Amino acid sequence: MRESYREELDDINHCLVELTNSVGSAMSTATTALLDADVALADLVIAGDAHIDAVRVSVDERCFTLLARQQPVATDLRAITTAMATVQDLERMGDLAQHIAKVARMRFPEPAVPQEVRPVFLEAGHVAESLVAKTGRVIAKRDVDAAMELEAEDDLMDKLHQQLFRELLSDDWPHGIESAIDITLLGRYYERFADHAVSVARRVVYLVTGERPIALAPSS
Amino acid sequence: MRESYREELDDINHCLVELTNSVGSAMSTATTALLDADVALADLVIAGDAHIDAVRVSVDERCFTLLARQQPVATDLRAITTAMATVQDLERMGDLAQHIAKVARMRFPEPAVPQEVRPVFLEAGHVAESLVAKTGRVIAKRDVDAAMELEAEDDLMDKLHQQLFRELLSDDWPHGIESAIDITLLGRYYERFADHAVSVARRVVYLVTGERPIALAPSS
Repeated sequence: MRESYREELDDINHCLVELTNSVGSAMSTATTALLDADVALADLVIAGDAHIDAVRVSVDERCFTLLARQQPVATDLRAITTAMATVQDLERMGDLAQHIAKVARMRFPEPAVPQEVRPVFLEAGHVAESLVAKTGRVIAKRDVDAAMELEAEDDLMDKLHQQLFRELLSDDWPHGIESAIDITLLGRYYERFADHAVSVARRVVYLVTGERPIALAPSS
Repeated sequence: MRESYREELDDINHCLVELTNSVGSAMSTATTALLDADVALADLVIAGDAHIDAVRVSVDERCFTLLARQQPVATDLRAITTAMATVQDLERMGDLAQHIAKVARMRFPEPAVPQEVRPVFLEAGHVAESLVAKTGRVIAKRDVDAAMELEAEDDLMDKLHQQLFRELLSDDWPHGIESAIDITLLGRYYERFADHAVSVARRVVYLVTGERPIALAPSS
């Protein structure tokens, strides 16, 4: 029984890594849908969110069953409660990718992102991709160094977010209020996506080191 | 030992209800700070968030200790994992109140909310207050009816959110892009606050009825 318990714990972790990949792929596709005004890609992300939600429910149930049947203690118990919190962040990251796809869909056939801020969203997309890849490494290998790198990339995302506001507030923003609303929300979605990645990483750092980082929840 | 275990579980639930009150009070104060451009109130909310974060960490640790020492099963186990997820939503609701206070602080001495949308935010503040009160009842009494009422109020919050966009997009919005950014973000904070209340309520419904509502996580 212990053997299969360990296998189940490993398999749950494997599911989390796969879910991270799904979320990363949703975010990359959403960014492309946004920048290319590609409604087919946007629909793919929107439809794909149900799968992410289903995996989340499944991981949650499996963790609960492990807790109920095996009554783990110490590090194993912490690993399971960490997995339960992590899957919540990952599902939310999937929601945010979906929100981005929905903005692309809403403005189709027009692009939701005007030329002036295109480079910022292109860069935000790259940062998001890199963040997700590191999140996967943090979960798979309990890699504390990758967790630290991830924090640095979150700072970069915050800078991109600030840059968006500067563009919007420059004297020659010619795209009006509706576009400003879109850009404000889109910037927020990318920023929150990064925050949730940080949250996952911090929880794994706590699991590995026993030291609780200053904030465990996404705080912005 | 069983006796003190039950007491501990009850006490954790009591802490969650108190935390809900703190979050409700932060949100009410933030709304007043916003509408009255009252920087002292805004600072109160901003400073008070550390307490909410601390309670969250404490509840989390206490739940973990209960799991480790008492190895509960069935409903008790579900109650503890529910508490661990709930405290995360409540902390996030506190963050959102803090974000609202920060917008009020940033624009001080000017009001962040122009006259045209003041009634919408006044109403959003009332809905948020009512939502939090119901959330407290749902947690304290496992009141499934209150959980259902709460969903209806979340719909009302969504309508207010839509109304904000209509105001921003009306031809005579005279307050420019910066104000539109503020209003967009503020609207989002109120909406997310309501979503998290719904998320708490749905989890309690699941705990009581064993039926998983369609979505357990805030989805917008």
